[in-house]
Amino acid sequence: MNVAILGAGMMGTAIATPIADRGHAVRLVGTPLDGAQVDAMRRTGEHPGLGARLPEAVLPELAPSVADAIGAADAIVLGVSSAGIGWAADVLARHLSRPVPIAMVTKGLQHDGALRILPDVLGSRLPEAVRAAPVAIGGPCIAGELARRRPSAVVFAGRDPRACRRLADAFRGPCYRVATSDDPAGVCTSSALKNAYATAVGIGAGLHELEGGIPGSVAMHNFEAAVFAQALVEMTRLAVVLGGRPETAAGLAGAGDLFVTCQGGRSSRLGRLLGLGRSLADAQREMSTPDCPVTLEGVEIAAVVVRDLPPALAPEDLPLLHRLHAVLFEGAAPASVFECP
Amino acid sequence: MNVAILGAGMMGTAIATPIADRGHAVRLVGTPLDGAQVDAMRRTGEHPGLGARLPEAVLPELAPSVADAIGAADAIVLGVSSAGIGWAADVLARHLSRPVPIAMVTKGLQHDGALRILPDVLGSRLPEAVRAAPVAIGGPCIAGELARRRPSAVVFAGRDPRACRRLADAFRGPCYRVATSDDPAGVCTSSALKNAYATAVGIGAGLHELEGGIPGSVAMHNFEAAVFAQALVEMTRLAVVLGGRPETAAGLAGAGDLFVTCQGGRSSRLGRLLGLGRSLADAQREMSTPDCPVTLEGVEIAAVVVRDLPPALAPEDLPLLHRLHAVLFEGAAPASVFECP
Repeated sequence: MNVAILGAGMMGTAIATPIADRGHAVRLVGTPLDGAQVDAMRRTGEHPGLGARLPEAVLPELAPSVADAIGAADAIVLGVSSAGIGWAADVLARHLSRPVPIAMVTKGLQHDGALRILPDVLGSRLPEAVRAAPVAIGGPCIAGELARRRPSAVVFAGRDPRACRRLADAFRGPCYRVATSDDPAGVCTSSALKNAYATAVGIGAGLHELEGGIPGSVAMHNFEAAVFAQALVEMTRLAVVLGGRPETAAGLAGAGDLFVTCQGGRSSRLGRLLGLGRSLADAQREMSTPDCPVTLEGVEIAAVVVRDLPPALAPEDLPLLHRLHAVLFEGAAPASVFECP
Repeated sequence: MNVAILGAGMMGTAIATPIADRGHAVRLVGTPLDGAQVDAMRRTGEHPGLGARLPEAVLPELAPSVADAIGAADAIVLGVSSAGIGWAADVLARHLSRPVPIAMVTKGLQHDGALRILPDVLGSRLPEAVRAAPVAIGGPCIAGELARRRPSAVVFAGRDPRACRRLADAFRGPCYRVATSDDPAGVCTSSALKNAYATAVGIGAGLHELEGGIPGSVAMHNFEAAVFAQALVEMTRLAVVLGGRPETAAGLAGAGDLFVTCQGGRSSRLGRLLGLGRSLADAQREMSTPDCPVTLEGVEIAAVVVRDLPPALAPEDLPLLHRLHAVLFEGAAPASVFECP
């Protein structure tokens, strides 16, 4: 198969490895914002953020190649960030000439009339003639591990189960286990919310440090674990309201991805800084470099869900998310995330 | 209230703190095996394993006091290990003269005709005249944190919801949040299995070290998280077969307790050693001291469930537990726990 990956960020680049390992011809095409990374990868064979070598056969390309790559593709993988979904919808609508299976590692929820999962947002923006239900990829998948061929297990979820299984069969390999699901709403809701909830879990580490504690088995782990469990309860509630199934959040896309996101990604590092008493603005400054402001997807999704809460839910149904929101935007005490429900 | 805690191990001792903080008169009575710890606590005011001071008002007592403590109690907390449940049933049957609420931090499942949760096993061994449905305490609760008054959230689950709420109301405090549940089967199954599954999760850390990796954000976290998610799926299956509800394993007693148990307790340390290639026997030796053989509850529960699998389940329904069992007892490759389902 000819596979076009759109977006040459860490995740888009990392997923090139298992796909190329299956013998597919992979074209990795950066967005207009990925120029510097694509240049670096062409020079060094490594994504600057991943620190792992690209497969030999993959030579990243700049955004202008996207028309050609889409035209030649038998399958497309969207590796853009949620902010890049507009660009992706635009180039797909312009350059797709037939329906081609699309898989998305892009995570998020968008207000588009109502709160909607990204595969539905994207699908609705494609012309009728080329429309296919995009497949959401969820599950615990740190890009740096995937690119190093560490064993990873993900779930492909789509409204068209046959198309979903076909993509899963094409992409899975010994280091990339792929389960399938017909619950994209549950998978996408869990995937999107995990960054926010990992921030809430991470607050425990900051509170512990603030008290002078050293990391170890006696820390604030009871606190963190209680927040973790409440996160799954709330993911489930929102998933069900968005049309998902109640068991999905306890699987790879919810519990699995939240677990891995609590092991030291950006979202939990933000939580630690909040626990140490930093404001959101200070934490953001501390996590950014002069030429690279940090993207905090957990902050965005908390803002989106609190602002566009589906009418079937009251704030009391998602107390942890609302308390986190108050910590982020209203200066509430970080320890208050523990007081849920 | 007069509260008798039976069993002066780490958990029995730790729970004395929130109960005494609520103003109850606490008697902490060791089992016949707790003599050394009780002596040490009477001398130093600290449990040797906890490293946190006992509340002023609590003076631990030796096993012969148990008749008197039970006779005077308005509520009883069982803090014994699962191996001590026989002793506890025996002293309760002998010394209870009226039905008194009983809460259990003791975790496990026992084959008693069929696989049963411990509150039911205990309840059935009490004489009719003093029988009350014991309340199971589940949720993420590292004893060392509880004893230091770090915020902890647990769930009290019992077949008699009113009795359960009454105990919860009596014991909860600012550092000891108590939710209630009428699903003791779900809570007990999750609590019991979490040690086995934490061992499976811990294998990832050992495999990573074996390859020469240093702990950090790029390790085997995708592997660990996939095992974590599968654990919740299997906890749910067994809980439902034992009469529990499908959502319980995703809450405090399942996801919460498993999360905290993965943060460096005995069970996950065993997993690390298995991942490093040690046999169970070697790992047990390495974790024991000359005068204190290590108790590995995860090993016991994996053996019990595989041996006494309820007829409604096939081994393929709990593939991770069966693979872990094969790693523990049949020399299977530790990495094989990842190959589930």
